[in-house]
Amino acid sequence: MHLLEERIRKDGVVKAGNVLKVDSFLNHQMDIALFNEMGKEWKRLFEGIKVNKILTIEASGIGIAAIAAQYFDAPVVFAKKTMTINLDGELYTTQVESFTHQRVYNVVISKRFLTPNDHVLIIDDFLANGNAINGLMEMIKQAGATLAGVGIAIEKGFQNGGRALREKGIKLESLAVIKSMDDVKGTIEFM
Amino acid sequence: MHLLEERIRKDGVVKAGNVLKVDSFLNHQMDIALFNEMGKEWKRLFEGIKVNKILTIEASGIGIAAIAAQYFDAPVVFAKKTMTINLDGELYTTQVESFTHQRVYNVVISKRFLTPNDHVLIIDDFLANGNAINGLMEMIKQAGATLAGVGIAIEKGFQNGGRALREKGIKLESLAVIKSMDDVKGTIEFM
Repeated sequence: MHLLEERIRKDGVVKAGNVLKVDSFLNHQMDIALFNEMGKEWKRLFEGIKVNKILTIEASGIGIAAIAAQYFDAPVVFAKKTMTINLDGELYTTQVESFTHQRVYNVVISKRFLTPNDHVLIIDDFLANGNAINGLMEMIKQAGATLAGVGIAIEKGFQNGGRALREKGIKLESLAVIKSMDDVKGTIEFM
Repeated sequence: MHLLEERIRKDGVVKAGNVLKVDSFLNHQMDIALFNEMGKEWKRLFEGIKVNKILTIEASGIGIAAIAAQYFDAPVVFAKKTMTINLDGELYTTQVESFTHQRVYNVVISKRFLTPNDHVLIIDDFLANGNAINGLMEMIKQAGATLAGVGIAIEKGFQNGGRALREKGIKLESLAVIKSMDDVKGTIEFM
């Protein structure tokens, strides 16, 4: 998606350790007009595929998923990273290792919100090693729901997550796929 | 807001300890069509007041704020509850005690996204004792930004947060204010 690539080139900052900071428009400050364009693009890319639920994971996927959901007329469920006193009863659970936070989270979804009737589109901001997406897919499997596909804003194409999903035959639509980036020169190359 | 009150009556569940579960439509599964109606209502209530930024706190405020922001043509900034390796440099920081999670969080906002030029509307899902809102207001003050007002989905009117904000002269617009609730009878009364 040209608009997103241009925005990453303009406002993204490459840091050491393969970190791409896009916090000025994607995951700390959020450009809602851009999110609407991303939502429209996913709708086009998943045209004809049944989707009745959007699934994401807190926190940085939530805003993107909420805006995108408007184009699918579907509610959003976000997986939660900690057990709260408000989350009682029956839960799907898994563990996800966070690249950014360098720790392992317990991730939960209430069984009431993911069922065998659901055709689920996963939406998230980043795909690197695919840990978060694999965790969400594991919970979709636990629920007996159908995975409609995966929509990602920024895929780090030089890490393994995207290739592994495509090899499984999963419909993955990443709006910007980074081929390489260089924190010394500050350059970003897209696929 | 009648639509939200009706939805709380229909799908809200009162639990012991003054806990109101609205996770089927507000803060785990999110009804995006309802959020759009809430956004329109806040726009009406804050008509004529300058707003160029929406501020919320992760995680459950993000979806509501993102949808509401469409009616204000403003970006959303969400305060983060943990320090990540992606959040370097200059930060506004404060501490917030969570009623739901029964713990104290460090909360941060990058200084780049809150400045003296900003007229900030705070949006959040719940107002009880006001700890989260007070933390966000503290960071608005640190930034020298202007507080335009506070928009809340559900205010627990029997706790102190709302009264304290109104006594300070802050424009607070809660779309549903709960007068009392009873977990044995399962009843909810609104103001």
